[in-house]
Amino acid sequence: MKNFEYYNPVRIVFGKGKIAELDRLIPENALVLVLTGGGSVKKNGVFDQVAMALKSRKWEEFSGIEANPDYDTCMKAVERIKQKKIDFVLAVGGGSVIDGAKFIVAAACYEGSDPWDIVTGKAKIKTALPFGSVLTLAATGSEMNAGSVISRRSMGAKLPFASEKVFPRFSILDPETTYSLPSHVSACGVVDALVHVLEQYLSHAIHAPLQDRQAEALLMTLMEEGPKVLEYPEDYNVRADIMWCATQALNGVIGCGVFQDWATHMIGHELTAAFGLAHGESLALVLPALLRVRKEHKRAKLEQYGRRVLGLEDSGDMAEAAIAATEAFFKKMGLGVRLSDYGIPNEAVFVVADILDRRGFRLGEDRAVDGPMVREILAKASAP
Amino acid sequence: MKNFEYYNPVRIVFGKGKIAELDRLIPENALVLVLTGGGSVKKNGVFDQVAMALKSRKWEEFSGIEANPDYDTCMKAVERIKQKKIDFVLAVGGGSVIDGAKFIVAAACYEGSDPWDIVTGKAKIKTALPFGSVLTLAATGSEMNAGSVISRRSMGAKLPFASEKVFPRFSILDPETTYSLPSHVSACGVVDALVHVLEQYLSHAIHAPLQDRQAEALLMTLMEEGPKVLEYPEDYNVRADIMWCATQALNGVIGCGVFQDWATHMIGHELTAAFGLAHGESLALVLPALLRVRKEHKRAKLEQYGRRVLGLEDSGDMAEAAIAATEAFFKKMGLGVRLSDYGIPNEAVFVVADILDRRGFRLGEDRAVDGPMVREILAKASAP
Repeated sequence: MKNFEYYNPVRIVFGKGKIAELDRLIPENALVLVLTGGGSVKKNGVFDQVAMALKSRKWEEFSGIEANPDYDTCMKAVERIKQKKIDFVLAVGGGSVIDGAKFIVAAACYEGSDPWDIVTGKAKIKTALPFGSVLTLAATGSEMNAGSVISRRSMGAKLPFASEKVFPRFSILDPETTYSLPSHVSACGVVDALVHVLEQYLSHAIHAPLQDRQAEALLMTLMEEGPKVLEYPEDYNVRADIMWCATQALNGVIGCGVFQDWATHMIGHELTAAFGLAHGESLALVLPALLRVRKEHKRAKLEQYGRRVLGLEDSGDMAEAAIAATEAFFKKMGLGVRLSDYGIPNEAVFVVADILDRRGFRLGEDRAVDGPMVREILAKASAP
Repeated sequence: MKNFEYYNPVRIVFGKGKIAELDRLIPENALVLVLTGGGSVKKNGVFDQVAMALKSRKWEEFSGIEANPDYDTCMKAVERIKQKKIDFVLAVGGGSVIDGAKFIVAAACYEGSDPWDIVTGKAKIKTALPFGSVLTLAATGSEMNAGSVISRRSMGAKLPFASEKVFPRFSILDPETTYSLPSHVSACGVVDALVHVLEQYLSHAIHAPLQDRQAEALLMTLMEEGPKVLEYPEDYNVRADIMWCATQALNGVIGCGVFQDWATHMIGHELTAAFGLAHGESLALVLPALLRVRKEHKRAKLEQYGRRVLGLEDSGDMAEAAIAATEAFFKKMGLGVRLSDYGIPNEAVFVVADILDRRGFRLGEDRAVDGPMVREILAKASAP
């Protein structure tokens, strides 16, 4: 086991009807900015629940944080916070709204000249406004971690940053808020959570039997419950299981003391930035291809995954069988696994590899994934 | 899944050599009281590592917190804190020292007339001094939770209390600090951690597939690695696995949204208070007897435990086979499972049941464990 540090002070308030408890979770007398996305929370009643729970508090709304939250949109919220002397931000939505909130609360307190430095890592976050979240989509895990991914469409960029200063103070997870999601969005969420686990699990093997089994617990549950959500979108147990899995997939626990990959995410981010692919779609596309290219390096863990999670019998190439079963799961969830499934031209292979090359990234748990290897991976994702 | 709230802000600093990082974890300029137990940290070098890591800080020691920390001892530490205007407590030791610290930091700030009210729950803790820990024994999980058990020998009492105000700010977990433990102490620690998991897992079944598997991950790892510690006490991987398992066994995660029992612990506490049994010993004694009495109520989970964790085949009474295998594991760890193994007279059956009756406790996940049932349980533990 590698040495590690684990810290996660997010208060999780989980279950039916929990939005009603909002008032006790927000500091007294705080002037609240409620941050929302494209409007779905207005249609499904979540916004009304939030408004009612805020009681006689003073609050206002900033709406329009888009999927893959954009720097320019977020900066408008920052301006509003400064203008109105907001004390507390409440993100109501999925991972994009919460990721946006993390950047916004940091940028609102940032004293340097260019807040983009927060995203690129040039600037260290010294302080941030407090914020909480009401989650409406099980997917990114942003509700219980200190990471965020911000896009800047004007620069074709999508980059992650992290800081302990941007942990949510609390996150309310009511599975009923996810009943009305379009099924493709639910499916992308399941795939996102599953790939978060695999990024931390399918690296090269290290002695960490507890972490392995904790990751396998998440994988088995996501693969068991995930497909049910397409058939029974209003089954409380299914929605609750998926929501709690997605949160724990990326709250830091299963990554303690082990090697982590994250190359699939970094390549996926570039595909999203360049071609507008949804995040979950980009992962379904990249992961199987990446695993095939890195099969020998990851063989021990792929075989363990095959045996313990997928229930495969020992025969032939177990690692390839595990990759094929993962790919089959993505398809079962209705996601494409080739560039052509999304109408993306094969030139994407070169475009994305070149971008990563230019950024000087070396990806993967061993930093072996370089430009040429990204080309090889995306070539596999463009094969028929 | 039941509704739940989860909050755990303890910073875990895990691994070889991590005690050296103490200085950055303690607030600047704090006057530190280092709290220790019976002296083992002086012999195994941990105290010297702590002293060196505290560098030029001002600190002093309070030693002598006993196993099952006593109210009267703790109150002496409280007096010292007030006298010397201590700002920060550093607990260096196992669960007893850390449990003691939790009471001490609360009592030091308590303004009521009788600090025992903190333990009985009569008084609500409003504030407490900050504290951190350097763990030297994998067992109780106290290093990453807000609970504490305090004994008061002058009253024959051993009672638990909990408050968010007494979370450690940080806990340093260096598996090497546990190399020199007597093997019986290590064994008791493994059993303690295992029973913590079983208290949260072997309750009546509820739909919570992730929590079930997370508990099973801990159980399988503890049962696999536990016996190795007796043979290879200086194997880093074994010590690290057990340490991380013990912490996660009682940091709140696996108890989220499920029913919890804890009757074994409450009965065990009384056995310790009345007969001086070590905590782990009391659990090894009570748990199998309790499971036999409550077998039908817990059958679904006992069978799942038998199949998934113990690898038992379906045949005959799977629930009884699972209990027998658990009892066999305790024996393998060198612990007794009957009153006579510890030289405790059979009258203990009545003594303990009467005490619990008198306290008016109704134990178990369904509050069905009353005085007569405790008698029945302990009668089973006194059978040959």
